[in-house]
Parts: sequence; C-alpha cells; structure tokens
Amino acid sequence: MSAFAPLQPGSVIGILGGGQLGRMLATAGAELGFNIHVYEPEPDAPAARVAARAYAAPWDDPGAVAAFAAKCDVVTYEFENIPVEAVEAAASQAPVHPGTQSLSLTQDRVTEKTFIRDCGAGTADFAAVDSLAGLRTALEQIGVPAVLKTRRFGYDGKGQTVIRTLSEADAAWDMVGGVPSILEAMVPFTRELSVVAARSASGEMAIYPLGENSHADGILRTTHAPAPIDSATQAEAKRIANVLGEGLGHVGVFAVELFDLGDGQLLVNEIAPRVHNTGHWTMDACICGQFENHMRAVAGWPLGDTNAHSSAVMTNLIGHDVDDWLDLANTSDMRLHLYGKRETRDGRKMGHVTRLVPPTKAVA
Amino acid sequence: MSAFAPLQPGSVIGILGGGQLGRMLATAGAELGFNIHVYEPEPDAPAARVAARAYAAPWDDPGAVAAFAAKCDVVTYEFENIPVEAVEAAASQAPVHPGTQSLSLTQDRVTEKTFIRDCGAGTADFAAVDSLAGLRTALEQIGVPAVLKTRRFGYDGKGQTVIRTLSEADAAWDMVGGVPSILEAMVPFTRELSVVAARSASGEMAIYPLGENSHADGILRTTHAPAPIDSATQAEAKRIANVLGEGLGHVGVFAVELFDLGDGQLLVNEIAPRVHNTGHWTMDACICGQFENHMRAVAGWPLGDTNAHSSAVMTNLIGHDVDDWLDLANTSDMRLHLYGKRETRDGRKMGHVTRLVPPTKAVA
Repeated sequence: MSAFAPLQPGSVIGILGGGQLGRMLATAGAELGFNIHVYEPEPDAPAARVAARAYAAPWDDPGAVAAFAAKCDVVTYEFENIPVEAVEAAASQAPVHPGTQSLSLTQDRVTEKTFIRDCGAGTADFAAVDSLAGLRTALEQIGVPAVLKTRRFGYDGKGQTVIRTLSEADAAWDMVGGVPSILEAMVPFTRELSVVAARSASGEMAIYPLGENSHADGILRTTHAPAPIDSATQAEAKRIANVLGEGLGHVGVFAVELFDLGDGQLLVNEIAPRVHNTGHWTMDACICGQFENHMRAVAGWPLGDTNAHSSAVMTNLIGHDVDDWLDLANTSDMRLHLYGKRETRDGRKMGHVTRLVPPTKAVA
Repeated sequence: MSAFAPLQPGSVIGILGGGQLGRMLATAGAELGFNIHVYEPEPDAPAARVAARAYAAPWDDPGAVAAFAAKCDVVTYEFENIPVEAVEAAASQAPVHPGTQSLSLTQDRVTEKTFIRDCGAGTADFAAVDSLAGLRTALEQIGVPAVLKTRRFGYDGKGQTVIRTLSEADAAWDMVGGVPSILEAMVPFTRELSVVAARSASGEMAIYPLGENSHADGILRTTHAPAPIDSATQAEAKRIANVLGEGLGHVGVFAVELFDLGDGQLLVNEIAPRVHNTGHWTMDACICGQFENHMRAVAGWPLGDTNAHSSAVMTNLIGHDVDDWLDLANTSDMRLHLYGKRETRDGRKMGHVTRLVPPTKAVA
C-alpha cells in the first residue's frame, strides 16, 4: 500500500467497535484534533460516550455500516473479530485502515500461523483439525501436551483447551464444539513477551520497548515494560515485528505475542492487528502511546515517538478488581483508567492501572 | 466546606463551558470512568465533541442551565467568566465545585486583590478607579508606569492598557471604555512564575512544580517547568497557594500567577479559579495532570500525584501557528494537542505542544 495524504485536523475518523479500545482510540484521536464517530451494536457503549457521534446498529446491517462510513474520512476498527462483511461495507464508502488483509490473515489461526512462517518467523508446531479423527492424527504428529483452539473468534483464552494425554481427545473436541480448529504444540517458554508496533501507510515502523506479560485464567494480568532483555532478543523481536508488519501491509498498530524460549529463540504465539492490552502501558509511560500512534497511522500522519520516559507495570482490573477503585485512585505513582462499563461481570476487563517507576533506558 | 462522599465511577460530571479547557477536562474525566455532560452556548464546541451529552443553550437561560444540572451528579466550570447567575441556576439542581465564592472573589480585580492581601500574600499597589478624575488621583497615588485594567471580564491581556505618563490618562480611560477599573503599579519583576494546585473538599492540597512563563502580546507563549527555583522561593509559592486555596474554600484546580521580584519576594498577579494554561504541561509531564486532578477534586476523590516524571516546555499554538501541525507532529519528544476549533483566527488558542526533556527532580 502506498502512502496517502495526511488527514487535516478536524477530519472524521470512524471506529468500528465501541469497547474500551475504541474509547481509548477516540480520546487519543480527539487530542490530535480529529472528530471521532463510533459504530457499535450495543447502545451507550464506552466509546460512544466520548465520541462526537455514535451509531448503534448491528454488524450485519451493511446499509447502516455504509451510512456511518459515508460520514467518515477514514475508518478503523478496535477489534479483529469484527465481521469482514462489515469492514467491506465500510470500505465501500471510505478508506479502511488497517485493510481487510490484516483481518483475514489473523482471524483464522491456521491462516495466521502459516502466514507467520511464510514471513520467516517461528511458531510452535501446529496442525489444522477438522474432525475427531483429524485431532487424533494431529496429536500423534504434534505430541502432548498440546492446545486445541478454535480457528476463529477466540480471545482471552476462550475456545481453547489443553490436551495432556491422548485419551482427552474426545472431551477436547466436544469442548471446542467440533468446529474447525488448530492443534498447537505447547512450547516450553520461559516467559511471554509482546512487541507492539505502529506501521504507517508509507511503511515507516515505530516499535515500542518490549513488554513482559503474565496471565491468569487465560486473561492478561500484568505487563512489565520495558522488559529486561538482551540485545540479541531485542533485535530478533524487532525483526519479527518488521517482517510481520510488512507482510500484512498493515497500517496502524499491531501487537505480536512472543514466547521467549530462553535460548535466544522467540516464537510467535499470535498477532493482534490492532491496539493491544499489552500496549496499554505505553499511554502513560511513552512519549506517544499506542492509541495515538494508531490514530496517527490511519490518518496518514507521521508516527509518534515510542520512547519510554518511565518504566511501567500495567495491571488489568478484571471483574470485581475494579471495586478497589478508591484505593487505587489514592496510590502514588499510579495512573488509573476506568472504561465506563455499566455492569461489572467476572472476567470482564473493567479498567487498568499503570504504576510508573523511575525511568530506565528504552530498549527498542 | 466539608468533605463529601466520592462520586462512583459512572456518575455524571457536568461542565459549564465547552472550549479547550472543557474538552481536556472532559477527556480526563472519562479516563476515570465518569460520564461527561457539557453546557455551552456555541453549538459543536470543542468539548461537546468528546462528551456523552452536550447542551447548546445561552448562559442567560436559567431554566436550560437547571435542566442540564438536574442530570448531573456534580457540576463544574471551565472558565471564571461564566455568569454567576448561570452557576447559581446549576447550583439549584446539583453541587457546583468550585463554589460561587471562588468566582465572586476572582471575577472582580479589586475584590480579588483585596482578598489576596487579606490572606497574607503580596500584590502590586492598586487602587479602584470609577471615573477619569479617580484615575488621575490613582495615578498620583500609584505613580507611573502603571496598568489600567477593567475590573471584570478581562483575559489574555484584553481590557487593559499601560499608562507611562500622566498625560495618557484620558486615552487610557477611553481605551477601557470608562467602566469600573483598577489601576495597578507596574512591578519590576525578573520573571513570571505560576503555581497550579488542586484542593479537595476536605482541604487536602496537591501542588505542582512551579512553571516559568513568557508572554507575547498579552498571551501566554511558553511555560518551562519545573522552573529552576531556590528552596525559599519554592516554599513561599507553596505558602501562597495554601493560603489562597484555603481562603477561597476552593474545590478543584486553581492557578496563581506570581511576579518574582528577584529578591525573594513573590507578588500575586492574579488567581485563576480553574485549570490554567500555565498548567497544560502537567498533562504530559506529571503522574496526574491538572485536568484529571480537577475532576478528582470535584468528584470528591483523593487528589492525584503531582510529581513530574519529565521536565517540559509547553508552547501555545496561537492563530496560524497551528498551520505547522504536520511538522509539529513529526518532532521527537513532543506531544501535540489540537483543540478541534473549526476556525483559525489570529490570537485564538488553537492547540499547544509540550516538549518533554530528560527528567529533573520535581521541585514542589
């Protein structure tokens, strides 16, 4: 994709999706002088309440999506599970960044992992699984332990299960609902890292310092960043971000989850073609955070400075964690972000906090 | 004023005034999970475009103001020149912070300077002027050079003129329109400083590091912060902020413009009972910026951490300065803020940039 002329301040950027990512994108875009329109089926969504205009209509109403996009100078999306048809309806009326290629290559785990390997980055061994018999064959090929995941529409550990013995195959196949799936070898990694990067339409890349992540119950709990990392690992993460960003022809922010094998090897777990939870620390600790950089990229602007002025520990507020908001608001060195969700539910991301710690040298 | 229970996230904070200060307040409030409503006579105002709900109606429509406030859990204002009557109409329906005392003591320059002196802080010599004859008498008392200013509704150098010889009295009186005015001695200051502080309903104070300001054509151009300052000056600035905040019974952010006489004395130029242009650097260089701290204070929350993680140079983008937005967006270490104003006019504040420089020890 070639470069395009930068959008003037005052232009309209449309966001498909009205959750917390859309909300933080909207706010970052407004800081640059843009007017933000949000399309989200759920009325009164978090992003709708900080936007100049909000549309509440279903994803499967291409006329409504097109009418929304017709008022926008450019359209983006907050979440990769938005139906490609909705993105295409938007694209009939306005440029959409990132393009449908970033979606189509990452919405299906088999397509995604094949693409990653084609780009010259490593992944765990994997096999497509379309039947119980196919699962058994794949287990013989990949070995145990392994993870069975649905090919599409998984996030936060949903739609996946670990298989530790061959006898668990039937239960696992039931658990994923018998839909097209992928079996992945479980990798003996020492830690999970992520690299968040922005890519402009002209191919410019801006890469953030790496984050080190820990999960609980399949959901990200904390990111420490900049992660302590040697220069070879850092160089390899940058290489991976560059080849994947280029391969996708991506315009906007994307994140790459990496398994650090501890022997200098980094394997790609998955690509998120959007702003990412493991990049939330950047909004408080970097000169230009991921949300602003995404809006800059989709607007055709130069990318912002990804250097960190502080080190950070980002912790998600999941479910009733958020009930501690008053204590969290009363903590020194801490930034509190609440997403404005009306209902607190177990497992739901309600906000996050970022503790800023004395600056270290940015590593990427 | 006694403390009040902290507002729950999801509560509605109303803002009277829809300019850039309201816009940055709205965005900061949304980050804390609040819903923001904006009341502003001008339709499509900057703050309206980032709020959950916007009301476009005149200041002199108390029914409309009251209807707005009835939907709010608390109301605040972005600007001290909002008519007291509008604030009172809001106060009939919801708590208003800061209260009308902060407005009434600062909307009139004679009342304000008298109050400042009563609090034990210094000001330039001044005299109330109600007629041309009174101006002549005041000039004999104060001496020249002196500044004649309207008592009310001045900002950014509007409604004021310097008198260098007694013969300029007639022209000066014409220039201010013959309205009730104040004559102030011109002070031989070495630099202008400002202290921005937040005060909670319980009397807690959070004071930012001092900024050093330079003006052109009566409008703030740049703030360097934290300002290089000795410990005695720092202590005196803190004392002044404390006595004035306490004297006003203020709830929210306020700013005090100070003349540094270079001999250890600080004289108060004026108090702004609101977030202030000389505090804009805090949103990028402090743990908790002035806009968030204002929203915390009016919501009854604990105040946020005012420490600076970086040093900063904030520069206003005035009028067609903003035409350089693309170059500014392409500058390392720089944060760009555009206010979303539809029309660029000479002398109009269109945005600001903050250059972050390696951190120094915060001084207040």
